[in-house]
Amino acid sequence: MRQVRTLGLLGTGVIGGGWAARALHFGIDVIAADVKPEMEAWIRGAVANAEGALSRLTFAPLPPKGKLSFTTDLAAMARQADFIQENIPEQLELKQRTLAAVSRHAPREVVIASSTSGLMPSDLQRDMECPERFLVAHPFNPVYLLPLVELVGGKATSDLAIEAASRFYTYIGMHALKVRREVPGHLTDRLQEALWREILHMVNDGVASTGELDDSIVYGPGLRWAAMGTNLIYHLAGSETGMRHMLRQFGPCLKWPWTRLEAPELTEQLIDRMVEGTRAQAAGRSIRELERLRDDYLVAIQQVLRQFNIGAGATLRALEERLYEAGAAAARGALLAAAAGDSPGALRLVETEVRPEWVDYNGHMTDSRYLQVFGDATDALLRYAGVDDAYRRSGRALYTVETHVTHQAEARALEPLYVASRVLEVDDKRVRLFHALCRGRDAAQVATAEQLYLHVDATAGKAAAMDEGVRARLAALQAAQARLPLPPEAGRLAGKAR
Amino acid sequence: MRQVRTLGLLGTGVIGGGWAARALHFGIDVIAADVKPEMEAWIRGAVANAEGALSRLTFAPLPPKGKLSFTTDLAAMARQADFIQENIPEQLELKQRTLAAVSRHAPREVVIASSTSGLMPSDLQRDMECPERFLVAHPFNPVYLLPLVELVGGKATSDLAIEAASRFYTYIGMHALKVRREVPGHLTDRLQEALWREILHMVNDGVASTGELDDSIVYGPGLRWAAMGTNLIYHLAGSETGMRHMLRQFGPCLKWPWTRLEAPELTEQLIDRMVEGTRAQAAGRSIRELERLRDDYLVAIQQVLRQFNIGAGATLRALEERLYEAGAAAARGALLAAAAGDSPGALRLVETEVRPEWVDYNGHMTDSRYLQVFGDATDALLRYAGVDDAYRRSGRALYTVETHVTHQAEARALEPLYVASRVLEVDDKRVRLFHALCRGRDAAQVATAEQLYLHVDATAGKAAAMDEGVRARLAALQAAQARLPLPPEAGRLAGKAR
Repeated sequence: MRQVRTLGLLGTGVIGGGWAARALHFGIDVIAADVKPEMEAWIRGAVANAEGALSRLTFAPLPPKGKLSFTTDLAAMARQADFIQENIPEQLELKQRTLAAVSRHAPREVVIASSTSGLMPSDLQRDMECPERFLVAHPFNPVYLLPLVELVGGKATSDLAIEAASRFYTYIGMHALKVRREVPGHLTDRLQEALWREILHMVNDGVASTGELDDSIVYGPGLRWAAMGTNLIYHLAGSETGMRHMLRQFGPCLKWPWTRLEAPELTEQLIDRMVEGTRAQAAGRSIRELERLRDDYLVAIQQVLRQFNIGAGATLRALEERLYEAGAAAARGALLAAAAGDSPGALRLVETEVRPEWVDYNGHMTDSRYLQVFGDATDALLRYAGVDDAYRRSGRALYTVETHVTHQAEARALEPLYVASRVLEVDDKRVRLFHALCRGRDAAQVATAEQLYLHVDATAGKAAAMDEGVRARLAALQAAQARLPLPPEAGRLAGKAR
Repeated sequence: MRQVRTLGLLGTGVIGGGWAARALHFGIDVIAADVKPEMEAWIRGAVANAEGALSRLTFAPLPPKGKLSFTTDLAAMARQADFIQENIPEQLELKQRTLAAVSRHAPREVVIASSTSGLMPSDLQRDMECPERFLVAHPFNPVYLLPLVELVGGKATSDLAIEAASRFYTYIGMHALKVRREVPGHLTDRLQEALWREILHMVNDGVASTGELDDSIVYGPGLRWAAMGTNLIYHLAGSETGMRHMLRQFGPCLKWPWTRLEAPELTEQLIDRMVEGTRAQAAGRSIRELERLRDDYLVAIQQVLRQFNIGAGATLRALEERLYEAGAAAARGALLAAAAGDSPGALRLVETEVRPEWVDYNGHMTDSRYLQVFGDATDALLRYAGVDDAYRRSGRALYTVETHVTHQAEARALEPLYVASRVLEVDDKRVRLFHALCRGRDAAQVATAEQLYLHVDATAGKAAAMDEGVRARLAALQAAQARLPLPPEAGRLAGKAR
């Protein structure tokens, strides 16, 4: 089979456009063929649109982008492509006819794949020339972002064609899932379709709205499914004895009317297959170990979704707003007490630990995470001085001008940490802060940051005096902390050298 | 209904333990009641175990943790709790009997909720005293991390009880989904069960293994389901005309044998309900807008999963390793050319853009992200000088000692950026680098970083001379770049002041 430099696309709808964007991004030239000439503008638009998200998927160095050309001559495309992907409408006869025609122009070592959602490869390859180089390769929308592609061979398909296709799809960043046997809907769409038909029944019966049914997945099982499937998840739910326990406990539910789909008989043979399958998936990892992995990704995904204020991320964001509100009220009291001289030490406003995702290849906390923790400390201190959401919405903000970070010790994953913060200097437009990051267990100093902030009117885009109350609270704190000796790491900023 | 300060748990298995961990974390006291005294040690272990992940969910300030107590006296628990959550085995009669008994000890204004997966609230409340304060509140495993809880009232349940329950679950960080009508399995488990029974059929028929079926979700639809359900996803798949187009196109598939579950007749009424429902979910957002949101979260989730090397994240990681390998080979050539004096300017080894998730509440790139980009530049430069995975696996590494960052301009979301890097100084154990971060469109300098690195033998935990080849490549580069004027921002490090 050929090394793929040029991908030929047969049909240019949403799926064809997705294939084009993905292939071009990873350096493959694309010849898009469609009998309708107006599809040229369409596919160029689709590629440009996909590029926005695709360009953020990885920041690893990429080969030069591929070139996109368009033709209404399917035969010309077939003569030039190293690999052909068909994406025309889901009509068996239309696909059979077109695939047969194209196969007469494509050299015999060119793999031809169909994106069909559910048609069977043996039916599709029936009238083709060299049908052994044909397979189904079913992608998912958006093709340029989702890695899954199901590979299904028909009766005439050669192993060589499946292997060549698998190599090509892996090259363009995908996960090629080889399906053992052709069945209508392959694997994924059978599972999706069962869920979808149950949804249609429930909407039809007036039990729930589409939005409620979506919520029933998005806030719960959907988060788990982003990285573990139902089988592994149920294996975990069975505690120490895994899937076998789970089937013993929930086996009776299979007879209950929880869906309109009748379950198969839970025979000993089926139980054994489920148990063996999930044991292979666990690959020697204990239930406890897999639970930790599940918990870690569930936390991380919710934190990511928070940025988009969607699903579980919206729930988390609303929760945090309430907590910050309550926390700010309580801590303002502590700050005032400190400023009044009751506790003139550095303020501990941030307690955290080294999260596993903060750790680099050396097993230590990554440089940028230090600045993240110091930034959290600055935010907490400023919030308690009165720089809250309302203040920011008024168009005023503190911008970082300069930062000096020093490192004294290493912090390892899950190490508890805290930040002790001081106000070194404040005038009407500037604040200079000093943070010391320390280990929770022995108070050893891990790193320090000295930071200079400028107060700006963000709308006007220039420096402006800060609110009197904010300045007064910072100044009171600075005065209270002035009794402490100046840290040896401070005084390295150009804007404010010692 | 009461303000909830103390949660009473009836039954202490996996679900009871999850409720305990979540409630305690958000400041609610918990009295766990179980007739088996050995469950006290069990639930304390479960809470401690959950705390690892739960403590990383949010870094917002929390109220003081709740206190956990245990009793084998169900009546005593019922007399002290402000809210009772039942989690005993899924046997109708056992639940009816226990709920009835407990209801005789709990004051009438105490809400009693059952965690049942699929039993009907009307059946469960049958023999209770004050059955109007009873409802089903069905959570998902792990209860301490997944926000979903389905609220289902029975025939006797009051709206007041549902509202009080909704307030309580929201307080402990959950998303309360009110289910309109009681049906076996509520909403979520009906959808999960349809998918699960289709899995069992496929394993039973020998079509696929449990692992293959899990993969068929995890690398594709599962990523989408983390934030959008099937209905909204299919609305998007229908392009400009949304769900109506989608049903027209895929309606015929409902008759195909894609699952053993028979679909309902696709009547005009059902179509209208699906269209109206998804239109309400779109809430005025165009298909294009929703696509962008979907693409953004798909990118971000895959990047998060990469950290755990799981599912789509493992695919992405493998892709990046290959790309870095290829990129390193190409760039080593550029580095050598630069060192040979062919292009003695600062090296551009990193090109990126301000990713949407890097932006803070001011609309600007967050401080810590600057250090992330500078870190990428350092990594790239060192990789090309020979500090690669193999080098690191040999136990040698460069640790950051000191960093000085200055800011000159702002960078907004999606702004293209590049880093120009220089070697200022190198000896056998130390390297001093200088990076300038510039805007792609006008080459304006946005920020600078001067960084001092110490070469260490990580196993021995002390400074050690670097590899001769690495040092030679860095020295050649430093010599070639020495003709450039020293940047005015450089020279502020204590370890190496000008």
